[in-house]
Amino acid sequence: MVPGGKGLHLSGARFSVLYQLSYPFEKAETIARHICYEQTVEFPEDLIEEGEIKDSLVGKIESLRETGEDTIQAHISYALEVTGMEFTQMLNTLFGNISILPGIRILDIILPEEIMPLYKGPRFGIPGIRNLLQIHERPLVCSALKPLGLSSSELAEQAYQFAAGGLDIIKDDHGITNQIFSPFLERIHRCCDAVQEANSRYGTKTLYFANISGPAKDIFRWAYRAKEAGAGGLLITPGLIGWDVMKTIAEDNSLALPVMAHPAFTGTYVQSKTTGISHEVLYGLLMRLSGADISVFPNYGGRFSFSEKECRNIISGCTKPLLDIRPIFPAPGGGMTTERLSELIDFYGSHFVMLIGGGLHRYSNDLIKNSKHFMTEVIKSVP
Amino acid sequence: MVPGGKGLHLSGARFSVLYQLSYPFEKAETIARHICYEQTVEFPEDLIEEGEIKDSLVGKIESLRETGEDTIQAHISYALEVTGMEFTQMLNTLFGNISILPGIRILDIILPEEIMPLYKGPRFGIPGIRNLLQIHERPLVCSALKPLGLSSSELAEQAYQFAAGGLDIIKDDHGITNQIFSPFLERIHRCCDAVQEANSRYGTKTLYFANISGPAKDIFRWAYRAKEAGAGGLLITPGLIGWDVMKTIAEDNSLALPVMAHPAFTGTYVQSKTTGISHEVLYGLLMRLSGADISVFPNYGGRFSFSEKECRNIISGCTKPLLDIRPIFPAPGGGMTTERLSELIDFYGSHFVMLIGGGLHRYSNDLIKNSKHFMTEVIKSVP
Repeated sequence: MVPGGKGLHLSGARFSVLYQLSYPFEKAETIARHICYEQTVEFPEDLIEEGEIKDSLVGKIESLRETGEDTIQAHISYALEVTGMEFTQMLNTLFGNISILPGIRILDIILPEEIMPLYKGPRFGIPGIRNLLQIHERPLVCSALKPLGLSSSELAEQAYQFAAGGLDIIKDDHGITNQIFSPFLERIHRCCDAVQEANSRYGTKTLYFANISGPAKDIFRWAYRAKEAGAGGLLITPGLIGWDVMKTIAEDNSLALPVMAHPAFTGTYVQSKTTGISHEVLYGLLMRLSGADISVFPNYGGRFSFSEKECRNIISGCTKPLLDIRPIFPAPGGGMTTERLSELIDFYGSHFVMLIGGGLHRYSNDLIKNSKHFMTEVIKSVP
Repeated sequence: MVPGGKGLHLSGARFSVLYQLSYPFEKAETIARHICYEQTVEFPEDLIEEGEIKDSLVGKIESLRETGEDTIQAHISYALEVTGMEFTQMLNTLFGNISILPGIRILDIILPEEIMPLYKGPRFGIPGIRNLLQIHERPLVCSALKPLGLSSSELAEQAYQFAAGGLDIIKDDHGITNQIFSPFLERIHRCCDAVQEANSRYGTKTLYFANISGPAKDIFRWAYRAKEAGAGGLLITPGLIGWDVMKTIAEDNSLALPVMAHPAFTGTYVQSKTTGISHEVLYGLLMRLSGADISVFPNYGGRFSFSEKECRNIISGCTKPLLDIRPIFPAPGGGMTTERLSELIDFYGSHFVMLIGGGLHRYSNDLIKNSKHFMTEVIKSVP
């Protein structure tokens, strides 16, 4: 037996999670109760003396609801103090050990006001990015500098042409960091200069997002270097560098740069219908909580496999009311063409960032012309 | 069209990945070819001019082999330079975007000698940890300080008793970091002192591993504080803090502490048979590459769901020859009892770390006695 906990001084504030349990209803309570212990004390119930730990620190089943055959929604709440007001421990409480158990999927997260000190949230969000670009009505358009293997001058030339053609945002491809073909510092300086030159010559306001998703020992320094070089934002892949690393960079007041989050290495979390984390939570809520202003994901009907419903859920996660945390731009990508423009605007409305990659290179070798053409089509397509 | 790449100065060194594709054989080549492009240039093949990028930088299908109905093993190699000699970009190349595609699972990674500058590997590994503890023949025994909610004094009292009872390793529970019940600095000082006192009084050599899996802004500082306080090792959860953060800490020569890696938040990667990353790669190879000396995972037959085969694969990943990278301890946990000792030793041999949690508290309230009893049983069980 271990002591039951005394004088824990719990505030009473709790956050909660809606889990989908793919189990028969008879087993659901056992599984839910197991989650309550596994995600907090990770200790056998019968070996803890009676007291505050069992009464308040262990997770609480708020409700269990059968929503389909062998499908239960379990609403479980946790004392805010379990997280130690750390984002890493919040992720751990949501899904740490139970990520290893079959049949448990996170559908939603419900946060109390009292959690706000933990989250500055996205610094810009939809209103802040629109304000920077002075574009208030239409979807934004973003393209990537690629492919890997081009030199910094070649990538900077692309950046110049995209900016001259009026794209709103240009980002490094997420696989380009500091390879010998285009070392980080060289590239960001050339690309920042190219975009600034195009902006001042053509009167555009294009923002260049530098990819800083590199080694742990370099990433903060790279973020500062990108800022000094004049980058308009940062591209970050939280699945590669760590969610709290992204959050820390996004919340850094000396940087104060918009953050675009890339989904690489996280796809497995959403792939199964019965385990992992829902599209809405992963690419919506968790991205917002960790400070992203723009959340990249593969559009339905592209080369990946998200359904329309899943994309709609991502829109919801990016934009639904969540305490004082700003809504952020969903940024669907993959297989974008002018032919699909009106369909996409019908689907996403005006508040999204359209990622266009290879498609922009298809019309001709003149990227200024291609970009202008695409932007004209976008503006025409807005109702 | 984009340029085809000139003067890339590729060394010719390549690393490769064995992917399982859950697709009909007719589609396998298309999928494999898609992986080659998606994981490197992420650009349409027909829009890249002929040249070195297509010839050498894009992934190469080395072989395709049907291993079952709608199951193909695709061996794909990548130029070492794609990674920029960064671990984050290596993970990205292995599985970044294709983590979002269905039916692709990593089965193995094959590394060339030339990759060694990127990896110092585990500093201690099995031989180093055995050397620290001066225990060469039998499995090691580790327990966790818990549950969350106890005070630092209560946890330190547990640590004292476990050490006095002769356990080899004591770790913080992975959910205990810096909560108000037991703030980080207070806890590590009390626990380090308690273990040192027990060691000098009872002649034991117990190592205390402090959990530093906290906020990005604190984690390096915490690692140093733990070292100063006299911790014998660090507990790190790479799924929460980032794989390269763990690697950087493990490779830090001023720290030079053994690292135990915890699997929380990573379970989803192994859960599906058709997507994600194999048990062998995730809890074996990737843990070694990112510097862990001990890899924690749920034992078969415990409260999680790993099979005997999956646990055997983890042993393989932890110990099979891999360049000059040391073998590391597999550390199965969950539901350990004295009754299962000989079964576990039959299964794992002598080179593993046995994690025992609640089980140690079950015999009596005297943890010194319980620990001694358990250690005696372990020693008796070794053939």
